Amino acid sequence: MEDFAVAAAFTIFVGGALTIAARGEQQAGQTALSVRQAFLLIVSVWISITAFAALPLSFAGIGLSYTDAFFEAMSGITTTGATVMTGLDTTPPGILIWRALLQWLGGIGIVVMAIAVLPMLQVGGMQLFKMESSDNSEKILPRATQIASGLAWLYMGMTAICFVGYWFSGMSAFDAIAHSMTTVSTGGFSTHDASFGHFGFAHAEVMATLFMIVGSLPFTLIIVAVTGKPLRLWRDTQVRTFLMIVMITTVVLVLWRWQYQDVLTLDTLREAAFNGVAVISGTGYASADYNSWGPFAQLFLFCCMLIGGCAGSASCGIKVFRFQILYEMVKGEILRIRHPHAVFIPRYNGRKIGDDVTDSVMSFFFLFVAALGLIILALSATGLDLMTAASAAAAALANVGPGLGDIVGPTGTYQSLPDIAKWTLSAAMLLGRLELLVVLVLFTPKLWNS
Amino acid sequence: MEDFAVAAAFTIFVGGALTIAARGEQQAGQTALSVRQAFLLIVSVWISITAFAALPLSFAGIGLSYTDAFFEAMSGITTTGATVMTGLDTTPPGILIWRALLQWLGGIGIVVMAIAVLPMLQVGGMQLFKMESSDNSEKILPRATQIASGLAWLYMGMTAICFVGYWFSGMSAFDAIAHSMTTVSTGGFSTHDASFGHFGFAHAEVMATLFMIVGSLPFTLIIVAVTGKPLRLWRDTQVRTFLMIVMITTVVLVLWRWQYQDVLTLDTLREAAFNGVAVISGTGYASADYNSWGPFAQLFLFCCMLIGGCAGSASCGIKVFRFQILYEMVKGEILRIRHPHAVFIPRYNGRKIGDDVTDSVMSFFFLFVAALGLIILALSATGLDLMTAASAAAAALANVGPGLGDIVGPTGTYQSLPDIAKWTLSAAMLLGRLELLVVLVLFTPKLWNS
Repeated sequence: MEDFAVAAAFTIFVGGALTIAARGEQQAGQTALSVRQAFLLIVSVWISITAFAALPLSFAGIGLSYTDAFFEAMSGITTTGATVMTGLDTTPPGILIWRALLQWLGGIGIVVMAIAVLPMLQVGGMQLFKMESSDNSEKILPRATQIASGLAWLYMGMTAICFVGYWFSGMSAFDAIAHSMTTVSTGGFSTHDASFGHFGFAHAEVMATLFMIVGSLPFTLIIVAVTGKPLRLWRDTQVRTFLMIVMITTVVLVLWRWQYQDVLTLDTLREAAFNGVAVISGTGYASADYNSWGPFAQLFLFCCMLIGGCAGSASCGIKVFRFQILYEMVKGEILRIRHPHAVFIPRYNGRKIGDDVTDSVMSFFFLFVAALGLIILALSATGLDLMTAASAAAAALANVGPGLGDIVGPTGTYQSLPDIAKWTLSAAMLLGRLELLVVLVLFTPKLWNS
Repeated sequence: MEDFAVAAAFTIFVGGALTIAARGEQQAGQTALSVRQAFLLIVSVWISITAFAALPLSFAGIGLSYTDAFFEAMSGITTTGATVMTGLDTTPPGILIWRALLQWLGGIGIVVMAIAVLPMLQVGGMQLFKMESSDNSEKILPRATQIASGLAWLYMGMTAICFVGYWFSGMSAFDAIAHSMTTVSTGGFSTHDASFGHFGFAHAEVMATLFMIVGSLPFTLIIVAVTGKPLRLWRDTQVRTFLMIVMITTVVLVLWRWQYQDVLTLDTLREAAFNGVAVISGTGYASADYNSWGPFAQLFLFCCMLIGGCAGSASCGIKVFRFQILYEMVKGEILRIRHPHAVFIPRYNGRKIGDDVTDSVMSFFFLFVAALGLIILALSATGLDLMTAASAAAAALANVGPGLGDIVGPTGTYQSLPDIAKWTLSAAMLLGRLELLVVLVLFTPKLWNS
């Protein structure tokens, strides 16, 4: 545990020094944050937490360079689950718990941000989820603290139930703790190289499938459901669409494998549901090598990566509500072409949505596709093959974790990638986790200000 | 020539029968077209021309099934340039000219449609290019005829100059005629299996690069430029952006090959410009096997495929003006996040653009990406590998022609693909050529009508 002590000492020292340095400004009485400062704060907090969280991994003497450690820490905090580590089965338990803990904290961190901060900053259509009486953008930080405490109880409760489930299904207490933390956060770090394939417990996989789904639902609605109004969850259009996507994915994978490999058992169904949900929710566990399911299944899972879960959950990707709004826009466009004089107003969850929301969602979608293209190009310029570059970029930007192919697929690791690719992917994970715009706002050209 | 006679007789018979059958309705005095009828007319005209244009290819005794012939004809009429034919060097000249003619006619057809019909049907943001005093949507057909005659002169002139250029650079008169027709239409059919690689004439390649660029510019602006106002062409923001994209593409390809293959001569520059422009403009000629340029160059060309030329030209893809509007939207979105109370109105070519245009463009972009994803999935389900499926889908939807990889790449043909893949790709070519929405409007679910 010496490595943790050294890392902690270093972190405390830098933190203390910064606190003392910042004292003067605090006394000046500046309490309200400007919009730009809020964005700068979010991004720098995520980066600096990652930089310090990487220290124990780097000091642990398990053969990780600082680049590797930073990649692993970023993958943890952004709940991505891509790993550069092999030999997990013999890695010190302290390191394994540290990885799981990073994902667990990253998970709740992103939920609080999605619920309390992003809607007010009007990022990527998240203004749809602005709660009533919260229009004052100067109250961002106090409000976040208040919401966080409510969510913390839910999150801990979910983790506890998941832990009990895993334990009863045959995992050791240690494995159950680590995996429950990385399941509810849709993170995906495992304590074994073979991920869930190590256990072969059918019950544990069903449990995991269930909790990956729960981790992809809007957490505020889960609270509402748990505190007495279970139907509110079901009545939410995003939740229903998400569950439908999960069902369709499972059915397609089962039918495809029936056709392609001529297998059709209850195991096929469980494997399809587990691996499908693991990809859609951005968790990234694997119980089977889906590379062997043929090109269609690979491409299908690639598309699933980009979908993601619901807004306000721990999951990532483009998110279900954005696809719903894009669908509404296309529908409106086609109706407008057919009936040039009719007026069509897009709706979401039964309510009309304004131009600002549709514009935000559309801009987000275009940015996501453009960013994905640029990251794939950047990775391929470092010498990666097409499939590795494309799937690694998508898995990082959508915070899924493992990609496709032999290198970064469910049976491989990111270890062999060049350092420059690891830094690129670390940036992609942060970009995806902070919904792109939070980061891009900081890099707007000066001439736009005129 | 017997095959053409049989095909012509069959076509005339069906055409005559339909004319007689339609007589009754015409006498009823219905002259104005409803919007839906206009769309139905466009789509059915394209499909039936293709079906009959395929007959000579199918009857020619060159080993093409009707599926092959239909694919080839669709690839011709949509100016895609994907081919299932090998042994072009020994194919009867009549067939080669027929293919070139299909592209030439398809090229002018699509320009007339883009200038006269699509802006009035308000498809995919094309309403931006509505000309003054053309707001009466009932006058679609007479107007189209009027514009067509003006454009026809320009088109024939361009072809003639291109022909002379090719001839002087060393091609035979026959090759020069065939290639000039497939160059100005950005089609890409060649009379040799090795495409432009057959000639090895540097002058012909420069000539082709030039005319592929001209074929990707807005034809109405070319007329304006030719008739005395050359600066109007340069002052157009779409034209300038397109030329910038061509320049950047060329430079990136040159630098990449310098780094990757350590080659840097004037030939590298010419090859980069020729193959880059061939892909961006959707022509699809090849003078070099760009598969050997490494994964980055392949992915880069894949992205180029999707960009396309200017609206109102013979080229295809998403088109430059849409990316300009998407860029404006993202810029507006980021400014809105940073300055929540400011109002930002997107502009194009110095003029403000309305919500209907931005919504149309955004819907088009989403539809294009979604269609691309679905076509790739469909192709991979027929057993194609990842790269073949992805690049064939993109090359068909963006009407480029050759894809990437050994099978559908510049050195291969689409011949070995299963029939179902050929039909899927034929549909994709039509979908891409008719700007997606024209086709999709016909398939809107009934429940949307309420």
